[in-house]
Amino acid sequence: MSVTRPEGFRASATTAGLKPSGKPDLALIVRDAASAGAGVVAGFAACFTRNAMVGAPVTIGLELRRRALATEDGGAVPRAILVNAGNSNAATGEPGLAAARACMAEAARTLGCREEQVLPSSTGVIGRVLPVERITRAIPALVESASRGEAADAAAAAAIMTTDLVPKRAFAEVMINGHAVRIGAIGKGSGMIAPRLDSASGPGAPSATMLAFITTDAAVRSRDLQAILDRSAAETFNRISVDNHASCSDTVAVLASGMAGMGSGAPAAVPMKPLEPGSAGFGAFASALRGVCEDLARQIVTDGEGATRTFRVTVRGAQTEAEAEAMAREVVNSPLVKCAIHGKDPNWGRIVTAAGNAGVRFDAGEASLTIGEGHGAVEVYRAGLPVPSALADPRLKDAMGGRHVECVLTVGRGPASAWMMGCDLSAAYVSINADYTT
Amino acid sequence: MSVTRPEGFRASATTAGLKPSGKPDLALIVRDAASAGAGVVAGFAACFTRNAMVGAPVTIGLELRRRALATEDGGAVPRAILVNAGNSNAATGEPGLAAARACMAEAARTLGCREEQVLPSSTGVIGRVLPVERITRAIPALVESASRGEAADAAAAAAIMTTDLVPKRAFAEVMINGHAVRIGAIGKGSGMIAPRLDSASGPGAPSATMLAFITTDAAVRSRDLQAILDRSAAETFNRISVDNHASCSDTVAVLASGMAGMGSGAPAAVPMKPLEPGSAGFGAFASALRGVCEDLARQIVTDGEGATRTFRVTVRGAQTEAEAEAMAREVVNSPLVKCAIHGKDPNWGRIVTAAGNAGVRFDAGEASLTIGEGHGAVEVYRAGLPVPSALADPRLKDAMGGRHVECVLTVGRGPASAWMMGCDLSAAYVSINADYTT
Repeated sequence: MSVTRPEGFRASATTAGLKPSGKPDLALIVRDAASAGAGVVAGFAACFTRNAMVGAPVTIGLELRRRALATEDGGAVPRAILVNAGNSNAATGEPGLAAARACMAEAARTLGCREEQVLPSSTGVIGRVLPVERITRAIPALVESASRGEAADAAAAAAIMTTDLVPKRAFAEVMINGHAVRIGAIGKGSGMIAPRLDSASGPGAPSATMLAFITTDAAVRSRDLQAILDRSAAETFNRISVDNHASCSDTVAVLASGMAGMGSGAPAAVPMKPLEPGSAGFGAFASALRGVCEDLARQIVTDGEGATRTFRVTVRGAQTEAEAEAMAREVVNSPLVKCAIHGKDPNWGRIVTAAGNAGVRFDAGEASLTIGEGHGAVEVYRAGLPVPSALADPRLKDAMGGRHVECVLTVGRGPASAWMMGCDLSAAYVSINADYTT
Repeated sequence: MSVTRPEGFRASATTAGLKPSGKPDLALIVRDAASAGAGVVAGFAACFTRNAMVGAPVTIGLELRRRALATEDGGAVPRAILVNAGNSNAATGEPGLAAARACMAEAARTLGCREEQVLPSSTGVIGRVLPVERITRAIPALVESASRGEAADAAAAAAIMTTDLVPKRAFAEVMINGHAVRIGAIGKGSGMIAPRLDSASGPGAPSATMLAFITTDAAVRSRDLQAILDRSAAETFNRISVDNHASCSDTVAVLASGMAGMGSGAPAAVPMKPLEPGSAGFGAFASALRGVCEDLARQIVTDGEGATRTFRVTVRGAQTEAEAEAMAREVVNSPLVKCAIHGKDPNWGRIVTAAGNAGVRFDAGEASLTIGEGHGAVEVYRAGLPVPSALADPRLKDAMGGRHVECVLTVGRGPASAWMMGCDLSAAYVSINADYTT
């Protein structure tokens, strides 16, 4: 269950011939047009990479977002998301923008909507202009075959994969004001993963190609949906890193149809009223959306290139959340820490010194580090000193040997904490990435 | 030729039993006391890691530096540097400081100087208090055997190695005001290498355990020597990275004896007058010292853990040197770029997008990237667009296949440039680091 489980969405996928493997590489998510005058409120929100070098689809997506946030007109909410894998259409200048627009135009023509109602998204090799004709040739059948159900969801999730070993989907359902609201999502990402997605509201909140496309049948206005997504992305996608290299293409987009309960099989229904910020329903929806984002984020880091296990570092006792996050980020990105996790080696000195490289001062005398969870947690470093008994504690070996390792680093008595999640660094990562384009 | 080639220095090494391998692990560099009343001016300068978590020897070294910079009294210039490998004495709190001081005291007692005239330095495993008795037991013979010449230089360089495959030495000689001034150095470093050494004068300039110990027989006051070293370190050691994990122990220290030309074999000599800032001699010395630092820095990154080749990224056209350095740093630290270098893969999209993650805005339309040197240089990306002919150019394959790869990324029309040097990421790096402490 994913993107076509919420009411008002269909999906499809095909093979346009962009991947050397010849596997499916083009996916479409369609938001059905609500009946005129039905009182249905649709919404759109998106977060994009903060890389200074962005792909053509991101440039276009930023403009589509700006329009949607500037109006309450549902006409600014995309009718479709057109995603290809195998070519990121990045570092391609004006020809890249023209190529993306040509694909948008063909999708719009076939769907019967305006060009700017199609959100393009691309992932794959950088520096090659998108082969427009392969894509436009494939679009009519792609639109024609868009449908609801498991097969459509699975096909879309598979078509957007690059080095991913497994497709990624998430789903949540929550009752809000008498409506069963559904949130479905597909995502991809394995390498070039360290999202630092922007925020439409700020000067830029916190880079991979990770893509995530979320659909919901909730009724929520674009600006409210954007506020929810900004916060959710900052606390989930931005908290994972595979290789500390943010892509030029990272994109998370949400389409809200407002059609909860209005499926063709349902009794004559009253459209859901848009969620009001501050209401219990709004909070419940935000929480469910955050859950879907966290689920996808975990799937992405777990499927990190060459990864055999994951680890999470929680920094506590910092003065600010930003400082805690910066310290946790240094730890999950340290190749030395990642190799220690790979080797099941409780080399805690690497964790502590990595945190020390975040440019944040802390007092070693107040620092401590615990590895493991619950009753299995072992304090290896306490108040600036090694805990001599720790290395011989069998629980430490158990904690290091699992598929997921939890670490909690306390750096003082401040009020703030934050976590980052990473994966180990293996020889397989090197072999995957030492021979990719050629 | 290294640390004992300048006049006034002796060195020795021994096995104290700190390395599991049983190899030599303790080195001593001694600055001979100048004859009383001889008019000899000695100097001391040092730069240390900016990691928030520093080893006990760094805490002590910072205090020794503070004293030396606060006085013109040559008595604040260390008489000796005592270096051990196999244990970094870091994350060891007060017991670690006490252990370092006990070693300093024994060396001082044997040498006949004050405890604070011995600079301690340690590298190796983190979180284990230094085994003081093994070290103090070894000191008398270490002092006794200190001597001049190739054998002493080689023994000292070998004893400070950890995962280094080769010992590192550098030497320069320059004529200044009629004196043949010599600069000798030993260094170590292979993993946990991304020095961001501090600056005694500033709020902190830009992290490995890298160690470098430099001797010179120039006469130069501590504060002037520190100014020269601050700048040299910022432009050399701080421009290399093996794994983007700065150590808690990074240390570069310089001792100047002021005894140029006063060797026992020389005719009755007049002591060299201290170098005056702004003079031609001062500039010549600074340039030579910088050269020695760059030589050692290159040796360190070339011997990076698992490295099979090195690469240098020069960013041009930036608004400030700090911005250029930040962009170059992102590139040399990207695991994706490092794997591409390992695979001889001209995957330039990774280089450009890595630079885009430095938090510095630049206009892709003004960006270009060249790989290779001189007549072998190939422009692969120009004014925001791929150069279609580049990938088929045989010079590109040659440039990627060498032991060293040069890349020049232009990001605009600004006046500033900076380079960073890194090494490839190989499966050997993973195996070296996935099983280190246990």
